[in-house]
Amino acid sequence: MPGPLADLFVLDLSRVLAGPFCTMILADLGAQVVKIERPGTGDDSRAFSPMKGSESAYFMSINRGKKSVTANLKHPRGKEIVLKLAKHADVVVENFKPGVTKRLGLSYEDLKVVNPRLIYASSTGFGQTGPLSEKASYDLIIQGMSGIMSITGPDENTPIKVGSSVADIFSGVFTCIGILSALRARDRTGKGQMVDVAMLDCMLSVLENAIARFTVNGIVPKPIANRHPSIAPFSSFTASDGQINIAVGNDTLWLKFCHVINRQDLLEDARYKTNDLRIRHLDSLIATLEATLGKRKSEEWLELFEKAGIPAGKVDNIAEVLQNPQIIAREMLVRLVHPSAGEHIVPGVPMKFSSTEAVIQQAAPLLGEHNREILVSLLGIPEEELPELEAVGAI
Amino acid sequence: MPGPLADLFVLDLSRVLAGPFCTMILADLGAQVVKIERPGTGDDSRAFSPMKGSESAYFMSINRGKKSVTANLKHPRGKEIVLKLAKHADVVVENFKPGVTKRLGLSYEDLKVVNPRLIYASSTGFGQTGPLSEKASYDLIIQGMSGIMSITGPDENTPIKVGSSVADIFSGVFTCIGILSALRARDRTGKGQMVDVAMLDCMLSVLENAIARFTVNGIVPKPIANRHPSIAPFSSFTASDGQINIAVGNDTLWLKFCHVINRQDLLEDARYKTNDLRIRHLDSLIATLEATLGKRKSEEWLELFEKAGIPAGKVDNIAEVLQNPQIIAREMLVRLVHPSAGEHIVPGVPMKFSSTEAVIQQAAPLLGEHNREILVSLLGIPEEELPELEAVGAI
Repeated sequence: MPGPLADLFVLDLSRVLAGPFCTMILADLGAQVVKIERPGTGDDSRAFSPMKGSESAYFMSINRGKKSVTANLKHPRGKEIVLKLAKHADVVVENFKPGVTKRLGLSYEDLKVVNPRLIYASSTGFGQTGPLSEKASYDLIIQGMSGIMSITGPDENTPIKVGSSVADIFSGVFTCIGILSALRARDRTGKGQMVDVAMLDCMLSVLENAIARFTVNGIVPKPIANRHPSIAPFSSFTASDGQINIAVGNDTLWLKFCHVINRQDLLEDARYKTNDLRIRHLDSLIATLEATLGKRKSEEWLELFEKAGIPAGKVDNIAEVLQNPQIIAREMLVRLVHPSAGEHIVPGVPMKFSSTEAVIQQAAPLLGEHNREILVSLLGIPEEELPELEAVGAI
Repeated sequence: MPGPLADLFVLDLSRVLAGPFCTMILADLGAQVVKIERPGTGDDSRAFSPMKGSESAYFMSINRGKKSVTANLKHPRGKEIVLKLAKHADVVVENFKPGVTKRLGLSYEDLKVVNPRLIYASSTGFGQTGPLSEKASYDLIIQGMSGIMSITGPDENTPIKVGSSVADIFSGVFTCIGILSALRARDRTGKGQMVDVAMLDCMLSVLENAIARFTVNGIVPKPIANRHPSIAPFSSFTASDGQINIAVGNDTLWLKFCHVINRQDLLEDARYKTNDLRIRHLDSLIATLEATLGKRKSEEWLELFEKAGIPAGKVDNIAEVLQNPQIIAREMLVRLVHPSAGEHIVPGVPMKFSSTEAVIQQAAPLLGEHNREILVSLLGIPEEELPELEAVGAI
């Protein structure tokens, strides 16, 4: 059976990451995604290194399963193509700065005229409204302004950015949820609508409980390295050959843990009797545990913890992650064959459906690879017009 | 108009974070979410500090807008209630360790018998399949095993956990996408299905391009603090009173930037002529920029960068984030009134719909607050049976 979204047609005007991550999910789930790209150069991320042959690994990863059609949005005949596709589409996704689509004549107000059932999703740094709406932004800027950096880092004076562009990516996944919800509403009302998603809003909503904590106790949360704010021992420790994470989530696990590491003396120590006491004497607890855990290799510890049912794991680098038998068993590493770059690996789909299985449909497209298929077969533009459209710079 | 998911009934068997974050989004979007809790103590997170009055700030934040019904899943009459609700539900969400629902008689195989249209979503650490499937896990363990820690941190030897539980949270949002997609498929096929989401898979899929890069160039990605791997200057810098983020994304911005900071000399420096050269001479570039940027206050710099259109922003702590006029204008701080804890603040909904507006429906429930409403009014259990059900420990 095809993917769960096999009935959807998505027109994708977005570039680089937030919008393309959203449409990647939609394509993975079976939607037909037509990506509109600037003639000549295409999506900026086609130039992001490293390259495999002449193709960007970045672009190929985020744009697998989509179709590429070139159209110059500033050329009247390029715009005409986009309007025709919008008429046909269930969903439009864009991530221009607010105001740009209006100037192009491709705003929601413009497109709902040709297609009142359209779901029009905009993913931007700050959203379509508010005093900072038109401010330029990048993931780094949003991570800084959202507070996520202020609670991530090795110590309270060293805020650190998350190593992947999570502000873009969270914006992409929330845009996806917004689209699917609006489609559900359309099934009831018959009407489309606009969904406005801001990276800053998304990051605020995933701070877990930092806002709730601060507004209740007035204590500004700070980076606390790999520790847990209220459970101990629950942190990274250094074994003789590398780091391991250990999560002793309750007193039963604490009892088991002390036995496994052969430190029954700690069970008798008044400073460590309860979780509250362990948090209060965290520095001395960590020091004494580091001394013990440093005496063996990480794999030995992990085997012992595994047997005892104590949650623990390695701090794997990317090379190690790719060897994890669980990740392989879950088909989370997918080999695709790209027409120019050949075989390459992309992360798989993290939602496993029992009946409408999500399968990555194809490798990322070459620039304009589907011009003929979409323009001629779908829109009915006479084939002989294509060279002319190319010559005038419309496609 | 009510939220876009106003027609959905969700039975929520999940606890703490991954599952509850998913059902929080569904409730925010208008779904009716009935949260099943253990009689007496309820969701573990009801005990997470800090408390406002007798209520956990954590629990109130993640469980706003849901209804609470107590049911002991191990008591036949508690289980009977859950089965009746499952018959009525569109969606069941659970995040027990794999195998637990089977032992309880509440697995997908059990529930699809009473309701073939049911979407049954499981959110776990490692998923329902694979060699590590039944291993215990926490967010910290998954962050370590997924590689996200290996690319986050102040230097290449110091992997750092993201400060919020993003493995749980990403699992929650992907579970939400899985559910909404499966509902769309059900609208076509008439049949429900199971959606199996693993925290580890989710984190792998949000590493951005780390896997694509490594598999193409063989270089294991490492933490690089707040820098960009291939663009410079694009990082955090220290002003005289604190940190600011600056994103000089291209050569045009570099020209403007040097003028704004009055360092036109850098434009003449052969080491910094192009982005590639700036990356090659990053250490000297950062050192000279830090010397200049350290001479003024962050607000002064930000005003200058704002005027010149150079993307820049502060590294705000949570107290500062709550003052951001953009966040206030976007209604991302919502005041709720809880029956016991009174007024408190939670993050708002990061998807803004033009027609089916998403509004947080109510504060988090007291334990069992909706027993009467759901059991009597919805399921038709005679009111006089409730004291008996309580007395035997079923609710």
